[in-house]
Amino acid sequence: MLIRPKAGILDPQGVAVERALPALGFADVANVRVGRLVELEVEDASQLQAMCESLLANPLVEDYEVQLLNGSG
Amino acid sequence: MLIRPKAGILDPQGVAVERALPALGFADVANVRVGRLVELEVEDASQLQAMCESLLANPLVEDYEVQLLNGSG
Repeated sequence: MLIRPKAGILDPQGVAVERALPALGFADVANVRVGRLVELEVEDASQLQAMCESLLANPLVEDYEVQLLNGSG
Repeated sequence: MLIRPKAGILDPQGVAVERALPALGFADVANVRVGRLVELEVEDASQLQAMCESLLANPLVEDYEVQLLNGSG
């Protein structure tokens, strides 16, 4: 699952990265947003959305995106 | 960029999620790993690897993966 700060919500980690990069010599960087990546194996993929809403993401301030890999299917 | 704990490195956040999910009624969850998602706009994509190595990831304990979207090309 990819979990991102919602558009319009302040992202302090993103702001910190955006300020730090020019000091390290990286120019022309904009719109830095820092989110989370949660990877797991589960039998029943239909549970993933509920997992995000009840534990992995904060639906007030974060959006989540579920991606399936069907690894060991 | 997707930043993941290296294989074999303890991932305390992943362990915490893996323990919490069954208590919330989600069964058969395994191998939970929690990493970071960093999204940004940059003029010169060749800088991205160096950004990961110098700021965004800890190369001792994390792997990173650069994905390009060519958004506003």
